[in-house]
Amino acid sequence: MAQPESTVTATGDVSCTIGRVLGAVGDKWSLRLLCEAALNGVTRFKDFQAVLGVAPDVLGQRLTKLVDEGLLTKHPYQEPGQRTRYRYGLTPAAEELRLALTALQQWGEVHRPKDGGEPLTEVGRTVDTGKPVHVAFVDDEGRVVPADNIDYRYSI
Amino acid sequence: MAQPESTVTATGDVSCTIGRVLGAVGDKWSLRLLCEAALNGVTRFKDFQAVLGVAPDVLGQRLTKLVDEGLLTKHPYQEPGQRTRYRYGLTPAAEELRLALTALQQWGEVHRPKDGGEPLTEVGRTVDTGKPVHVAFVDDEGRVVPADNIDYRYSI
Repeated sequence: MAQPESTVTATGDVSCTIGRVLGAVGDKWSLRLLCEAALNGVTRFKDFQAVLGVAPDVLGQRLTKLVDEGLLTKHPYQEPGQRTRYRYGLTPAAEELRLALTALQQWGEVHRPKDGGEPLTEVGRTVDTGKPVHVAFVDDEGRVVPADNIDYRYSI
Repeated sequence: MAQPESTVTATGDVSCTIGRVLGAVGDKWSLRLLCEAALNGVTRFKDFQAVLGVAPDVLGQRLTKLVDEGLLTKHPYQEPGQRTRYRYGLTPAAEELRLALTALQQWGEVHRPKDGGEPLTEVGRTVDTGKPVHVAFVDDEGRVVPADNIDYRYSI
């Protein structure tokens, strides 16, 4: 078979960008933590633990890493008669990650559907009108662009 | 300090979806491999290796995993006088991941910019008109929705 034409025309700047992103949120638990915080409204250590079923030491490490990365803020709180515990909030940078997290979720609802469950076809709704929303490519005038009309390698 | 009101109202279906996604593409190298394939057009084993600087055994494992997950297809090719080598193509499911990968890239260009380099403000262009494109939330009529007008927890 003939050698396929190489389509690699430059070093991977896109990959470098993704690499830097994954340096911040690049393990399974960190991404799931951010999803719980950003999409499900989880804030407390014990709630992250309950929802994710992750070991406390791993959870603590990942939360600390996300605070260090400027993605979560840590706040003490105290229940009556209990010791001080901590809850975590999203920074503005992490709030902007919701778009990518929702895009991952949207792909997963289609390509990794829940066994035996109803497939979710909506990933959110508008607050003001209750319209279903999804993630899409749009041009600079706000028009939706089909995926087959995009040159992804423009930015190399 | 008073106990903050818990906002956890259900088990984490969103997290479960993301968890299933990360089961398929959830390590740093797999996501970077997919970015190179989906956004940079890399196809050949040796090109993945050159661009990512990853050890051949790790690269081989990750490529095999992505083939097993139905995200890459593997094809033999042969250069004159050389042994058979392999190149990899995206499946339709992986092509649909471009949206989420581009959303991650878009976040990274803003929040993890390249040291000393020009920040990339575009992640692609339309093929037909050359307009810059980006990833956004849109409603079911194709109108862009601001992030602060979205109830992300609708789908719980």
